[in-house]
Amino acid sequence: MVRETKTTPATMNGGDGEYSYNRNSSTQRVAIDLVKELITEGIATNLDLLQLGSPSSPEIFRIADLGCSVGPNTFISVQEIIDSVKLKYPQEDIEFQVFFSDQFSNDFNTLFKNLPSDKQYFAVGVPGSFYDRLFPKSSLHFIHCSYSLHWLSNAPKELANHESPAYNRGRVYYATAPTEVVQAYSTQYAKDFTSFLNARAQELVHGGLMALVIPGVPDGIPHSQCNFVALHALLEACLIDMHHQGSISEAKIDSFNLPIHNPTEAELKGLIENNNNDCFSIEKMESVIYNEEVLDVTEQMATSHVRAVWEGVISDHFGNDIVDELFDRYAKKFTEAFLIPESTSYKRMVLIFVLLKRNL
Amino acid sequence: MVRETKTTPATMNGGDGEYSYNRNSSTQRVAIDLVKELITEGIATNLDLLQLGSPSSPEIFRIADLGCSVGPNTFISVQEIIDSVKLKYPQEDIEFQVFFSDQFSNDFNTLFKNLPSDKQYFAVGVPGSFYDRLFPKSSLHFIHCSYSLHWLSNAPKELANHESPAYNRGRVYYATAPTEVVQAYSTQYAKDFTSFLNARAQELVHGGLMALVIPGVPDGIPHSQCNFVALHALLEACLIDMHHQGSISEAKIDSFNLPIHNPTEAELKGLIENNNNDCFSIEKMESVIYNEEVLDVTEQMATSHVRAVWEGVISDHFGNDIVDELFDRYAKKFTEAFLIPESTSYKRMVLIFVLLKRNL
Repeated sequence: MVRETKTTPATMNGGDGEYSYNRNSSTQRVAIDLVKELITEGIATNLDLLQLGSPSSPEIFRIADLGCSVGPNTFISVQEIIDSVKLKYPQEDIEFQVFFSDQFSNDFNTLFKNLPSDKQYFAVGVPGSFYDRLFPKSSLHFIHCSYSLHWLSNAPKELANHESPAYNRGRVYYATAPTEVVQAYSTQYAKDFTSFLNARAQELVHGGLMALVIPGVPDGIPHSQCNFVALHALLEACLIDMHHQGSISEAKIDSFNLPIHNPTEAELKGLIENNNNDCFSIEKMESVIYNEEVLDVTEQMATSHVRAVWEGVISDHFGNDIVDELFDRYAKKFTEAFLIPESTSYKRMVLIFVLLKRNL
Repeated sequence: MVRETKTTPATMNGGDGEYSYNRNSSTQRVAIDLVKELITEGIATNLDLLQLGSPSSPEIFRIADLGCSVGPNTFISVQEIIDSVKLKYPQEDIEFQVFFSDQFSNDFNTLFKNLPSDKQYFAVGVPGSFYDRLFPKSSLHFIHCSYSLHWLSNAPKELANHESPAYNRGRVYYATAPTEVVQAYSTQYAKDFTSFLNARAQELVHGGLMALVIPGVPDGIPHSQCNFVALHALLEACLIDMHHQGSISEAKIDSFNLPIHNPTEAELKGLIENNNNDCFSIEKMESVIYNEEVLDVTEQMATSHVRAVWEGVISDHFGNDIVDELFDRYAKKFTEAFLIPESTSYKRMVLIFVLLKRNL
């Protein structure tokens, strides 16, 4: 849920309304359930309180969830982490402090209102982009970031530059774009992910753990064949249709690009090993096939979900007026694209789970 | 800005509108300016990084501002604390983490939006009542709380109980009330302030400092003669007038009491020494006469200020409908009460500055 600037962040819809993230985040919830065992197991195997950096054997265990949005998923993840630590160290008298972090534009008021009344930790909100530093040096013991690291800090600037070979004219995404555009997205992803790792390397205590869950494309298939990419290609198609019918100008289309990229496991592994081999070791890396049946959801469910995620970004650029029409179109196109037998040709997205340990 | 429950907190008006706290907090700003030197001097004299509890000689210096509201005053206070620490330890390479804390109902979104763009610290928001625990044990190095500790967790319950000798029938405050009512307020204050000290004693590292600035009544004068009390007695008078004229029911009046109490320096000293002598030592205690000329403010300024502070509490109990009329009346009554020569008979409130050190 992160981009670099304060002015146009990709923030999930706040509040509790029909299109709020709070009521439309079941997809992200599935991600949490899928990796639950991996996190529990990762803590059981790799967390060693006695080995942790300053202070050793902490009486305070500090957890950060990055890209937390407004709940409820973040509360479930955090509770699982706490339960896993307590399971491994039942004798220790540890107090937990949890840092819920997301963009400045995130609705922290709703996040705080949604905090579980029986929470067993001290809760804190941290505004800012996770591509920058958010915490003091060596101040966290566990970092969790689920379903957020497919957001770029910004769409690559050259996509909107008509002198660039990567100029993405008449498109807003890379699903059906030439190689130069795809490459620009990959390059931006590499830059952003490296910034993320560098910041976290400073913030995590030595011996601390970081669990990342990233929606990705399975290795070895064309990205346009992945259903997650296809879902966003539909959004592009709706915007282009509206441009052709005159409700969106050419200039607006050519200056906008969806700021997301879904990496492959091989791509992520390369980025971690090339840039941060001295800071992090990969304790576990696994692609989990995302089980949710796209074919089982109704077009309304899919549309509400996409709207909760994208409404802010879209209306920032195109204005509020086009939003209702855009998502009406999306619902229709979704039916055409996915609710027919041929749609089974799409390959399912994967959730790439990575457990990193900050080297001692 | 604190009461005990999540449901009816006394929270300053959020946002940036005409009656927002953000635009009507100059009174609290004066408080900050008045005690600035005392805080700088207190840090210079009493802070010893080498003596601080775990970790010794911290690389991270953690500051909490309790009752922060939405800014800008909290940012000024925090910057002064940081400047003072840097002045004393210019060689140390310290990172600062600042915990801005206020009620769950505080407008944290506005607080975060208002954060200075050039801030030299990691900012964090902490929702909750400062009469409860807010932070892990021994996790803060400096606690600041200005212009907030005159708020009770709740108005004393017996004031609304018609079987109690402290039943505050036909009134909503203690300025003109019988001794039993005044005593109930004092007792509640003692209970709340003690809860505050107990929580902070756990959260502050040994050797850590806590600076409190509390609007109080000068020792030795009847509380009803203090202008701060008189300002709130005016609010009571307006509510009673509206009751007499039929727009507020008797039941509504009798079930409501203003949840504030202004202590004297002697009262505070007794509470600290009786309850927390083993945890805290008083390094400095001083009553500063509040310089702002009540006579110099217009009735509109005074009314906007009182409205920014009280609108939430009043409309929670009496409903939104009475608010405009109430503060129109307040403006008129303010003129009658304060903008005439006789009003100089009121004694000025004091700001009671207390610097406490967590004993080693």
